[in-house]
Amino acid sequence: LNSNSFGKRLVLTTFGESHGVAVGGILDGFPANFAVDIGFIQSELDRRKPGGHGHASQRRESDKLEIASGIYEGLTTGAPIAFFVYNHDHRPEDYDHLKDLYRPSHADYTWHQKFGIRDPRGGGRASARETLARVAGGAFAKLYLRRLGIEIKSRIFQIGPFRMKETEGEMWDAGSEVEIYLNTLKSEGDTAGGIIECTITGVPAGLGEPVFDKLQADLAKAMLSINAAKGFEYGAGFSAAAMRGSEHNDPFVIKDGMVTTTTNHSGGIQGGISNGQEICFRVAFKPVATLMRPQQTVSTSGENTTMEGKGRHDVCVVPRARPIVEAMAALVIADHELRHAHSHSF
Amino acid sequence: LNSNSFGKRLVLTTFGESHGVAVGGILDGFPANFAVDIGFIQSELDRRKPGGHGHASQRRESDKLEIASGIYEGLTTGAPIAFFVYNHDHRPEDYDHLKDLYRPSHADYTWHQKFGIRDPRGGGRASARETLARVAGGAFAKLYLRRLGIEIKSRIFQIGPFRMKETEGEMWDAGSEVEIYLNTLKSEGDTAGGIIECTITGVPAGLGEPVFDKLQADLAKAMLSINAAKGFEYGAGFSAAAMRGSEHNDPFVIKDGMVTTTTNHSGGIQGGISNGQEICFRVAFKPVATLMRPQQTVSTSGENTTMEGKGRHDVCVVPRARPIVEAMAALVIADHELRHAHSHSF
Amino acid sequence: LNSNSFGKRLVLTTFGESHGVAVGGILDGFPANFAVDIGFIQSELDRRKPGGHGHASQRRESDKLEIASGIYEGLTTGAPIAFFVYNHDHRPEDYDHLKDLYRPSHADYTWHQKFGIRDPRGGGRASARETLARVAGGAFAKLYLRRLGIEIKSRIFQIGPFRMKETEGEMWDAGSEVEIYLNTLKSEGDTAGGIIECTITGVPAGLGEPVFDKLQADLAKAMLSINAAKGFEYGAGFSAAAMRGSEHNDPFVIKDGMVTTTTNHSGGIQGGISNGQEICFRVAFKPVATLMRPQQTVSTSGENTTMEGKGRHDVCVVPRARPIVEAMAALVIADHELRHAHSHSF
Amino acid sequence: LNSNSFGKRLVLTTFGESHGVAVGGILDGFPANFAVDIGFIQSELDRRKPGGHGHASQRRESDKLEIASGIYEGLTTGAPIAFFVYNHDHRPEDYDHLKDLYRPSHADYTWHQKFGIRDPRGGGRASARETLARVAGGAFAKLYLRRLGIEIKSRIFQIGPFRMKETEGEMWDAGSEVEIYLNTLKSEGDTAGGIIECTITGVPAGLGEPVFDKLQADLAKAMLSINAAKGFEYGAGFSAAAMRGSEHNDPFVIKDGMVTTTTNHSGGIQGGISNGQEICFRVAFKPVATLMRPQQTVSTSGENTTMEGKGRHDVCVVPRARPIVEAMAALVIADHELRHAHSHSF
Repeated sequence: LNSNSFGKRLVLTTFGESHGVAVGGILDGFPANFAVDIGFIQSELDRRKPGGHGHASQRRESDKLEIASGIYEGLTTGAPIAFFVYNHDHRPEDYDHLKDLYRPSHADYTWHQKFGIRDPRGGGRASARETLARVAGGAFAKLYLRRLGIEIKSRIFQIGPFRMKETEGEMWDAGSEVEIYLNTLKSEGDTAGGIIECTITGVPAGLGEPVFDKLQADLAKAMLSINAAKGFEYGAGFSAAAMRGSEHNDPFVIKDGMVTTTTNHSGGIQGGISNGQEICFRVAFKPVATLMRPQQTVSTSGENTTMEGKGRHDVCVVPRARPIVEAMAALVIADHELRHAHSHSF
Repeated sequence: LNSNSFGKRLVLTTFGESHGVAVGGILDGFPANFAVDIGFIQSELDRRKPGGHGHASQRRESDKLEIASGIYEGLTTGAPIAFFVYNHDHRPEDYDHLKDLYRPSHADYTWHQKFGIRDPRGGGRASARETLARVAGGAFAKLYLRRLGIEIKSRIFQIGPFRMKETEGEMWDAGSEVEIYLNTLKSEGDTAGGIIECTITGVPAGLGEPVFDKLQADLAKAMLSINAAKGFEYGAGFSAAAMRGSEHNDPFVIKDGMVTTTTNHSGGIQGGISNGQEICFRVAFKPVATLMRPQQTVSTSGENTTMEGKGRHDVCVVPRARPIVEAMAALVIADHELRHAHSHSF
Repeated sequence: LNSNSFGKRLVLTTFGESHGVAVGGILDGFPANFAVDIGFIQSELDRRKPGGHGHASQRRESDKLEIASGIYEGLTTGAPIAFFVYNHDHRPEDYDHLKDLYRPSHADYTWHQKFGIRDPRGGGRASARETLARVAGGAFAKLYLRRLGIEIKSRIFQIGPFRMKETEGEMWDAGSEVEIYLNTLKSEGDTAGGIIECTITGVPAGLGEPVFDKLQADLAKAMLSINAAKGFEYGAGFSAAAMRGSEHNDPFVIKDGMVTTTTNHSGGIQGGISNGQEICFRVAFKPVATLMRPQQTVSTSGENTTMEGKGRHDVCVVPRARPIVEAMAALVIADHELRHAHSHSF
Repeated sequence: LNSNSFGKRLVLTTFGESHGVAVGGILDGFPANFAVDIGFIQSELDRRKPGGHGHASQRRESDKLEIASGIYEGLTTGAPIAFFVYNHDHRPEDYDHLKDLYRPSHADYTWHQKFGIRDPRGGGRASARETLARVAGGAFAKLYLRRLGIEIKSRIFQIGPFRMKETEGEMWDAGSEVEIYLNTLKSEGDTAGGIIECTITGVPAGLGEPVFDKLQADLAKAMLSINAAKGFEYGAGFSAAAMRGSEHNDPFVIKDGMVTTTTNHSGGIQGGISNGQEICFRVAFKPVATLMRPQQTVSTSGENTTMEGKGRHDVCVVPRARPIVEAMAALVIADHELRHAHSHSF
């Protein structure tokens, strides 16, 4: 049932736990004879590395990409692309104090209930380190889409209760209310959530499927499959519920001989299929579950107890989640772009 | 690529257009030797019929379920269950005025771009009538889940800008602000959106998959695959973004010898797997795109023009969307319940 | 797990039992805007009808194809193509004497073991009548392939122990050893098997996949999924085992500026991918399991007993299996032809 | 479209080329909390190593299995099992003389036609070295099946034109006609094919699916996906075509209170579902395509030429193919055993 695979035509299958030998993946269905910019793939991995801005985990990983098959002399060969990143810096002893506990709002308890066993080393497969393989796979998809003129960008839309200005770029300003908020949380051993907005430009009209595999449905699945994601909306999103039809509908007009819309409440997708406008969606993330302060929980043997996090943890993952959101979006769009072939042939 | 199929272990494949011969589906993977209450399936179809409350389309359909295979003497046999509903009341002439136009915020333009052809009869396959097969398939899933003590309920959470009281039950009160709002919209040829909340009780801990097929990811895909859905959130949802970790985390406690949580911001799912608490999510719907008032649009030959809806259309689809939301949720939960077998065997 | 579906890019999902309301299917992924010759689809169904040559079942079915969705004004629309054939002539009472028995070398016992229940009406879903939906689905694939210059032909290669002459065309000569053999079997209430050879011309080099989805692997699965099929071989087949490499290898030569081979022991496929030569394979069928003579068997309640067939049954199904073999081959080739898009794009 | 994956419930995805960094795979869906005998997995890899008997390639590979995820302290954890084997001994210079040629009856030409590019190092992904990942994945399946009492055995049924005696065990006798035959071929730079027979004992009645995913259909696909396989038959196989129904049918009898059959022409499968008898099938392999003697072929630039193999090559792969046949059979049976859950639940 392939629950470690994503996509139908372009399929990413991933493996690896937080403290195992390596994390990696196999990308099947990528076009052959394509020149791959490995430096770009590595740079995407670097974007999700912790430690860039003082509110993230201090774990230092080299996260160096290794290609095990599928590329020969810089070109894809038609063989599946296999890649992995070694886990150099595991320190499983950091997690010894957790092995008899279920951490609140983590996957410890549910994994144990599902599989009858649990890898206690930092969440094992449920760790966010799993997303590294998504970023690598998504980077291949980005390269493919870029060749077609499709670009995927994201920005931080909200941190905690604070809406970001569009002009703030990738991060918040020094001394801003967001920085003060995060510093306060850090000093209290607490954490923050946030919202990421992603926009995709250059998508031609016609990608997506009209019934179950609507473009927004596959984007929603992709986003909700990311650790800590709590919600997805596209175009006008939840606010559409309060709008009138006459306000929400996007009027069609001919502009420069092309069909376009004067507004984009549809977020670039109508009836599950791209309409040629900018695709826009938002993903909400809950605050990091690991706190550096005491919390009530239970032991694996069924007793009430308290626990407190130790070691390296982010106050807020939202900045590091941007490349993951983009990677999953790239996989969805590339999958549908490749699926689109032969939708009509004559 | 099976884009008219949904599910991995329990698979619903649907067919049918708004004005074709019939809509229906094939349900593959349903357990054999199961006594099916066909009356219940029919009653679910009746719940999505228009006309129940004055704000919905006046189209009168009998929507009588026919079973074509898979059930013998009231029991499932292991053969796929095929079912369909004839389209008695088509009146394609109602749509003649639309065949040379692309209706704003409908699928007309995007379908044409994707497939190079379009069925102009009331949206064809992109019509909401397609959801009838989902409701029938989901009703089978509900029967299966009910046997396991799992119940799926929904309520209207919001209509237009108005939050519903939990006590209002299925519909709003006569003379309420919602009723006044909808009557005003109707008189103006305008339409409303809304939000549906769905809760699932009785789900044991352990359903779902930890990586790509997280329970919330499959629910998100299911919901965003419904016509007019614009957003999905579960548990604390988008509001989680503004919460602190210490506020959002659900403390574990032992209660009556069972692991439970004192709050449920997780919405019953942690790490993609059910934790035994009530599963709760919300789906936002945009206002109906067909308006009984003039709108700017373009013709299929590329000229700016205006159009105005005619015939039978809902002011607000949210009440009728409830059985669809429940059906898709039932398909997801039943799929994962059946997939769960052999997750660990020893 | 979709066990009633076949194909990855072009997917046929079928339903229906021998004595249910109808048999039919949904074809998903067929290109839109394609003019369908419905008369050809019907003529393929007619080819598998019994009674054409005196050695087949006397059941008279009209087998009239109904299209329920996916085609509008003669063109495919991008919606899934749904079709069915009603079962007019069921006479389930013909099978009353069988409902407490397991017929030897039929699916009665194994179905019961798998599903805990059995539809005793003529084999139910395990009946060869299920193949009707394959022939209809395959006929669509044939039309698509024909447009590309790909033709699928079959011939009877062997009936019982008798190898057919290539010149004998579709059937054997009157008074031939085959006819005498079959008449003798019929008079004794016995049955015959045989071998069908299928050739596919016009397939360009490059269809198929190099590892698990080799073209011959998908053809083998397709053929062994047909009732009564016992073996599959392509090119030199089983006889290749006794050949030397220097004898079996197909030398490449340039002919008219094209790469071709001087022999075709490869059967048109090398490394799982078509090489542009004629694809050729053979399928062995066992003799019909229903005999008009006494056989030893057991009852469903676990007692030794004897039984004897009644009613309408073929002495030899091989002539009627030809359109089924061709249909399954067409589905495989069309699936791979559609999958081939974007194998390399630059 | 996942063409490097095999299986539906238990899914093996493989990667790696003959002369890349490594070959390996990801096994998804294997039950958690299962104690894995890694020594057994390694011993299966050793069985397919060349050089055991003088008629195989002299390439010396250590083929040491590395586990990258999915197993913790000897137990499966529910995470996907990732494994790989490094390619230590590549010597790509052995293949320099081939890079401008298409070797007869290899995948060089067809791969190039499909993907527009070719990895000339020893066949790349099309090399038999790819099967190493199948043997490793299949070994996990064997361990799972063994726990259920299901055993998979194979034997050499035929080498070249010589039928093996059942008593000859794994290999032929010294001085036998087979040994003389192979030595002659070797001295002439020629090669041999053969047939492998595989038997599976302990399979309970009820595994398999009645329509497209018949047990024999999935076995046929599995076997024809192996390099050099040319045919598949089960039970009476091709010889069934010449039998009468009264001769081929397997009479049911009650023996020790159990339903059994007095013969097994069905090869343990009826209607696509196991009947509890021994499953038996045969796979034909063509002679090795690489010859140590001159052959006619064409260059990649389209000129007629001759070539001659160099380096390390098998005279006959059939002995080395046995663990591959068994591995693929194990994957099919384990997949169906896991799928069988919930076929009927009440």
